[in-house]
This record gives sequence, structure tokens and C-alpha cells, in this order.
Amino acid sequence: MAKSIDLNSDMGEAFGPWRMGDDTQLLDVVTSANVACGYHAGDPDTMAETMALAVARGVGIGAHPGFPDLQGFGRRRMEVPLKTIANMVRYQVGAAQAMARAAGGEVRHLKLHGALSNMAMKDADLARACYEAALDVAPDVVIMGNPATAMEQVVRDLGCRWAGEIFADRAYEPDGSLVDRRKPGAMVTDPDEAAARMVKMVEAGAILTEDGQRLETRIDTICVHGDSAEAVAVARAVRKGLEDAGIALKPFEGSPL
Amino acid sequence: MAKSIDLNSDMGEAFGPWRMGDDTQLLDVVTSANVACGYHAGDPDTMAETMALAVARGVGIGAHPGFPDLQGFGRRRMEVPLKTIANMVRYQVGAAQAMARAAGGEVRHLKLHGALSNMAMKDADLARACYEAALDVAPDVVIMGNPATAMEQVVRDLGCRWAGEIFADRAYEPDGSLVDRRKPGAMVTDPDEAAARMVKMVEAGAILTEDGQRLETRIDTICVHGDSAEAVAVARAVRKGLEDAGIALKPFEGSPL
Amino acid sequence: MAKSIDLNSDMGEAFGPWRMGDDTQLLDVVTSANVACGYHAGDPDTMAETMALAVARGVGIGAHPGFPDLQGFGRRRMEVPLKTIANMVRYQVGAAQAMARAAGGEVRHLKLHGALSNMAMKDADLARACYEAALDVAPDVVIMGNPATAMEQVVRDLGCRWAGEIFADRAYEPDGSLVDRRKPGAMVTDPDEAAARMVKMVEAGAILTEDGQRLETRIDTICVHGDSAEAVAVARAVRKGLEDAGIALKPFEGSPL
Amino acid sequence: MAKSIDLNSDMGEAFGPWRMGDDTQLLDVVTSANVACGYHAGDPDTMAETMALAVARGVGIGAHPGFPDLQGFGRRRMEVPLKTIANMVRYQVGAAQAMARAAGGEVRHLKLHGALSNMAMKDADLARACYEAALDVAPDVVIMGNPATAMEQVVRDLGCRWAGEIFADRAYEPDGSLVDRRKPGAMVTDPDEAAARMVKMVEAGAILTEDGQRLETRIDTICVHGDSAEAVAVARAVRKGLEDAGIALKPFEGSPL
Repeated sequence: MAKSIDLNSDMGEAFGPWRMGDDTQLLDVVTSANVACGYHAGDPDTMAETMALAVARGVGIGAHPGFPDLQGFGRRRMEVPLKTIANMVRYQVGAAQAMARAAGGEVRHLKLHGALSNMAMKDADLARACYEAALDVAPDVVIMGNPATAMEQVVRDLGCRWAGEIFADRAYEPDGSLVDRRKPGAMVTDPDEAAARMVKMVEAGAILTEDGQRLETRIDTICVHGDSAEAVAVARAVRKGLEDAGIALKPFEGSPL
Repeated sequence: MAKSIDLNSDMGEAFGPWRMGDDTQLLDVVTSANVACGYHAGDPDTMAETMALAVARGVGIGAHPGFPDLQGFGRRRMEVPLKTIANMVRYQVGAAQAMARAAGGEVRHLKLHGALSNMAMKDADLARACYEAALDVAPDVVIMGNPATAMEQVVRDLGCRWAGEIFADRAYEPDGSLVDRRKPGAMVTDPDEAAARMVKMVEAGAILTEDGQRLETRIDTICVHGDSAEAVAVARAVRKGLEDAGIALKPFEGSPL
Repeated sequence: MAKSIDLNSDMGEAFGPWRMGDDTQLLDVVTSANVACGYHAGDPDTMAETMALAVARGVGIGAHPGFPDLQGFGRRRMEVPLKTIANMVRYQVGAAQAMARAAGGEVRHLKLHGALSNMAMKDADLARACYEAALDVAPDVVIMGNPATAMEQVVRDLGCRWAGEIFADRAYEPDGSLVDRRKPGAMVTDPDEAAARMVKMVEAGAILTEDGQRLETRIDTICVHGDSAEAVAVARAVRKGLEDAGIALKPFEGSPL
Repeated sequence: MAKSIDLNSDMGEAFGPWRMGDDTQLLDVVTSANVACGYHAGDPDTMAETMALAVARGVGIGAHPGFPDLQGFGRRRMEVPLKTIANMVRYQVGAAQAMARAAGGEVRHLKLHGALSNMAMKDADLARACYEAALDVAPDVVIMGNPATAMEQVVRDLGCRWAGEIFADRAYEPDGSLVDRRKPGAMVTDPDEAAARMVKMVEAGAILTEDGQRLETRIDTICVHGDSAEAVAVARAVRKGLEDAGIALKPFEGSPL
């Protein structure tokens, strides 16, 4: 049976007069768009425009909530009570649902952003608070997250829909976590190398680590970036590499684990 | 046939550590709560708490969107393109829908806040942009607005559901507009007088103006306030006055005009 | 020689339409006001009003910078690079200086707010970044901080001016740190008890701990609160207790340690 | 006597992760930088970086305050009481002074931004409120503004220092106001044409209008932009044209009118 895979990217990260990345180009490459919801980036106009473009191309729309910190772009850890974080997630997912509906689409998946995501990879209580909050307002939403983290455990416990994600431009440690960006080899910047790695991992159904291990996991989607010309080149190469290998690009199903 | 009427009030206007009004007390008086959506006041925690209290009491929940201006509490006019205002309304209504759903309720009505409301009373294009935006994301939502204004005209054109509102604490000009707050007699601060006026208007099915005219209009709801002890006293007196006159207090139907 | 002491309180913590505490009352009790600078609370109007009141009463004005987090009132820890924190402190101190100058006064001291303060008590690098930043823009500013913490060490190293602070409403651990609020006896809510404790500590020139120890330290100021009627009662009792014991109330000198 | 002129540009309009324009390039072209103060754009880090670059190049630093509206970039008119606007200007100027001082420089001039500037050109009360507020906190500050507007009248009344500004890329109406951007010929996009116009106006000591009139006025500075490659090309051409015509580029004196 022919394999298929999804390509996702963060989008709609403009704010007011400020642009970020080239969503229009990237929307021709990916099959899923994680749209910022106004807390770390994104405003109602940006959300509307990004979602309209996504709907026109059949790209799946995800809510991409983060901490309320525009200046820090949601990348600064904040010590926020779980109850408050849950309400913030509900608020942002609801706003995204409305913008998607008005654009003729719907919010199909959820991906946490920045520091909130980094924290939720290690903190099951936080991941659970966020995911339950999203499910409260979007019961069928697919949770996009990282295999071999607290995110996956929580999704397994909740029995909700899941899309396991790997990164096109990052190397993996033996335990399946990302190699620290400061270490040599952590970032994969060569488009062909990135493409070749992704083809191998998708075909293997496993994360292939730096030390040659093979961690079997369900891979549903590959994360690419669009914040630089180089990033877009990687995204395009990954798409082409997958297609050349006979792997179809299409939005994930998001079935439970 | 016995008459009935709705009592509404703005609520959930706290923000972070700051309180405003006494929602808990007022929720025992009103039948509809217009809940701030985070742009001029309100944050996700406040929205969640206010809506949970409203659901527990059977009080109808409304989205109460405003300009993105916490410091000015949405009371400062802003010159914002209609397209942007429409997206802001969609965003806020969607956030409110999510918070309501998580609280076991739903957004049943929409009432514009502050400067946005004042502008929409005179500007049909603005009113239409806001109302269409709300209907995009909540097709059955009841528009709460002021009779004899652009709001009413637009709702008539759109054919959507309507709840005509009068104010318990304000006197009316011959054309049905509110007497300017700076004029003597503009504000009705005596609880008994406010109650008596409301009973008369509801029984008459008309706005009774300062100069003794009777402007027939559909009155669905009475606006009361909760931002001071005096305001709460007026609200309670109005409720009691209506009940004593045999007018039932219950959420509006919101049928089209 | 007769002893003297300063009484300080956080003020100007309103924002837009929202009030907090009763600054007008408290300004008749204290000799120093720590004025919020717009990041965790306070807006230009509030700063102007609070400072005008302080100038009129001869109350010393302090800048009270915090994290950029209105919703969390600056009480949520944020992981912000030191360079950024230093710039935030410069920005807020400068804004406070301007508002003070326009009110006919000047910024005489600095006190960190909320989570930023809690973090700086334990983290000398953070305390140093904040204090150097303040001194960059206000070379003679007095640093108000907690004895027996990283704050005091850093001020000693910098050789800048210092005002050591004790709390009227808190009990102390053997090491001079505050007893955790969740422990019994942590909070001193009885006005007379608070007053008696403060008189004892000022006369002793030492923090008196729960276990009966006496930690000698320079006590320049006592922190009182104004966020409730109870807090104001404590503040007044402390002032009266000190005056009755012959201890003069006046703004601190703020000499180096 | 050889003429000299100043070239100014808005700068430091990044916010958090978002860039705007290329300040580094433009700082090699201009002699004055109008630095955003955090309300419509700019954050403490951006201010610090921009001012450090300006100090290193001997470029004069100006405070460039605007409305508190990041999403609208300060371009949306807001109806704010004069007292509040004055406090906002004080706050922003003070913050800019602190950042400049920490960078080894100082705030030498003030230029209003966006909608606030557009409003102040027509509304003398608003212009006066803003300028008096700036002078409260920076008594020697030079007010940069547009000749033949309320700004100029107010500065004349106040007797404060002035820098009259013309625009390199805009055509002028017979009364000295800018031709509406929507009219043909309103924008001067050809670098050589812009340069030639500026040389003529500086040599004439007058604004030369579209209909061939010559409005004598003191021209102290020329505004150029850096928000696109085209804008930077215009800025460079204007500088070169002026230098080729023997007009020295140097910061304005800013003497009273």
C-alpha cells in the first residue's frame, strides 16, 4: 500500500503591520497550516487572510495557541496556573474556529506553540490541561505533537485523535528528543539531506536518531518552516523528495493511537 | 396574555487582578449577561467564571465585543477599517462561543460595547459589518440593540433575530435617542422612579420620551448596570417593580423584526 | 539619638478603568510610594495622578518596574534574557522619571515588583542586571530591597544607595526570608500585633524571626499594603505604633551599605 | 554661506520578533533618527539597539511617540482626552530619554507619529498638549513638524525650538499640505526626481507646490523612509544630490521660529 504523509508549517505569524515568513509560497508546499491565534502572534485580519488562502488550497487548518506574549513571540516560559492556561487555550481555539468558519473552513487540528509546546513535551499535567481544554471546545480536534514525549502519553490516555510529527530540519537524540540547537549537527540546513532523511524516516515508520537507532513511532506529519528563503527551499525539497519516492502528500487522518 | 421582559447587564468586565462591578450579585437579578470578550475588558479566566455563574442560574449569555483598547475600556472611538472590525468581531464572538461551550452554555446574543456601539447606532455600514460578522460565526445569534437607530434598520434588512433594548437609568429624547448625560435629568438614579418608568414602557410597548411622546417599538430587554451599589439597587428595584406589575422576567425570544 | 523610619507601599496599581487599593488614603500614612510603571499595572494617567498626590504630601517617589504582563499583574515568572530585562527596567524607570518630573517631583528609589522581585531575591545576576540598568538612567537612585537576599549582596558590590525593607504583615524564617504564605502564622493580620512587631524590630535594628533569633541588619523602611480595608488598618496602626514609641516617620536617606 | 540640511527617518519600528525597514543601512544615510517608543512600535530592546547605532554614527536621536495601538501601528485615529494624550507623550518621551542615556546619547528632538501627527497638523489644541507635555520632561527638546500647519503655529506660540520638515517623496498642494496619496503624482518614487526636488526646495528656502508656487518657510530637515528597497534608494539619492549641490548634511540646530 502506498504511504502518504502530511507536511505542516506554522503560519499567520504576522501581527499588525509586521510580516513574518511567506505564507503564500509555503501554502503551495504544505498540507497543514498551524495558524497563530493572537496571543504570541497573529491578529484577526492575519488569521482571516491565512485561513482563506488555506481553504482555497485545501490545506488543513490548525489552531496554534501560545502564551500571551507578543514581545517574546510566545518563546519565553511563563509560570501560569494550569486553570488559566486551559482557559487561554479554549479562548484561542474558539477564536480560531470562528475565523476558520468565516473563511469556509474549520479547525481540524491543534499544535501548541513555542515555550508552551516545549513545556508540554516534558510536563504531562500541562499537556493534559491544554489538550482537554481544546477538546472541550473542539471534540474531534486532532492533537499534533511530538512522539516520545509527555504529549504522546497524554493523547494515549485521553484516547483522542493524534498526529505524530517529525522535524525536517532537526537531528534526533537516542531518546527521540531533538538535539540541542547549540550542538553541531543539530540543524539540517541542506535541502537534499533534509529530503533524504524524511523519505527514510517515513519509509521506516520510525525516527532515525543520530547514533543510528530506529525508534518506531507513527509518523503522520513533517514540520517545515517558512521564515527564510532557506527554510522554504528545505520545505520544497522535502516535498519533492517525498513525491519522487512515491509517498503521497495529503492531510493526516489523525486517528487515535 | 401576560407580558414578559428580559433584564440584561454587561458583565465579566474584570481583567487580570482588577475587579469591576459585582457580577455575582447582578446575576441573581438579570436574565441576560453581556460578557466582555478580552478586547476592552475580560480575560479567559474571567469569561470562564462569569459564564459558569450564568449557566448555573439560567442566565442567557451574550458576546459583548469592543475595540482592542484595555486602557480606554473600549470607550474611545477608533477609526478602524470595516474589514478589520468585522474580523475583530468574529474573533471575539468565536472566543466567547468556546468559553460558553466549555461552561456548558452557548452564546445566544450579541451586544456591541462602548464606542463601537455608539458608532454603530449612527453608522449603518458599521452596524452591518459587525452584525454580518457575528452571523458568519453564529448564524442564530440574536442581535441586541437600540430601537430607532441604524442598528435596528440593519437588523431589519438582514432579517436576523433582534432584541430591542431600553435603558433603566436613562431619559429619552423625542427621536428615541438617549438624553446626553451632561443634561439635567439625563440619568435616572432613583430606584423607584426607574422601576416605575420601566413598568410603564413595557406595558405601553413604547419608549416614553421626556417631552411626553410615545414611540412604539418592540421592547425585549431592559439594560441595568452593576458597577456601583446604586446601580445594583436600581437593577433590583426594576426587577421587583416589573414582577409586582405582573410582568414575568425571562430571557428574550429574539425573533426577527 | 532618636530613631526614624520610612513607611513604603506599592501604589498607582490601577489600570485604565480599573482601581486597585486606595492610594489617596494610604498616601496620608506612608512616606514612600512605589509607583507601578505600566508593565504589570499603572498607565500614564494613573502614574501622573499618583505622583501628583505624592508630591503634594512630600511622599518619596519610587519606580516599581515589573514584567510586561498586565493579565498576570507581574506575578507570573517569565524566562526573559537578562539583556531584555535590563532594557525593560531602563524603559520603565525612564517613563517614571518623566512622569515624576512633570508632577514636580523625581524618582528617588527603585523597588522591583512581583515575580521579578521574587526572582531577584535569589538570583544575583538578575538583581545586578536590574539594578545596573536603573543606575544607568538614574545614577543616584536608592535601591529598595530585602536584607539577607541576593539583592543586598549586589547592592553591596555595586556600592550604590540602599534602603533595607521589612514587611509589617509577614513573619520571618531563621534565615531572614519570609515565611511561606501557606504556613500558619505567615501573615500578621492583627493591626496591633503588626505595630508591636515593627516597633521591636526598628528598635532592635534587627529582623526578629519566628524562632526568636535576632538578625541584625539595617532597616530603612517598612512595607505596608493598601489593597484592602484590613491592610490600610494595619498600615495606620503601624504608623501610630511607631510614632507612639518615639520613632519619627520620614523618608529614608538611602546611604550605601 | 554654505547651506546645510538634516535628513531624518523613522526608525526602531521593529517589535519583538518582527522587523521593519533596514535601520542599519538607513543610519548611514540620515542625520536624525525618530525612534518609536513602544506604543505603536518599538520595544526596549529595539530602542536600545537603534539608539546605540545612532550614537555610534553621530545621528541625532528623537522620540517618536504614537497612539497605544500596536496592531494598527499608530495609524488609526483614536479619540483620546488631551490630558491622557499629554501623559502618554510624557511617558514615551521619558522612556526614550532613559534608553538614550543608557546608550550614551540623549533625546534631542520630538516627532509625533502616524495618526497622532496627522491629527496634530490640523488641531492646535492637540499639538499644544503634545508639545507642552514633551517640554515638561525635556525642556530643550526640538519639535520636528510640518510647516504651514497647526504644529508650526503652536511652536511659534510656545517659543520652543523647531525643526521644519519637508518630505522627499511627496508632492505639495498650494497651501503647503501634502497631496493626497490617492491622487496621481502624489508620491515621488523616482530617486533622481526626489533628489532634484529636494535640492531645489532647500536652495529656495521654500516648499515648491505642484501648481508652481513657492511657499517660503524654514526648512531644517527632509524626511526619508526606509521601509522598502525603493525607499532606501530614494534616501541615498537625496543625500547624494544634496551633497553634489554643495549642501552639507548635518543635524539641525533647532532654533525657535
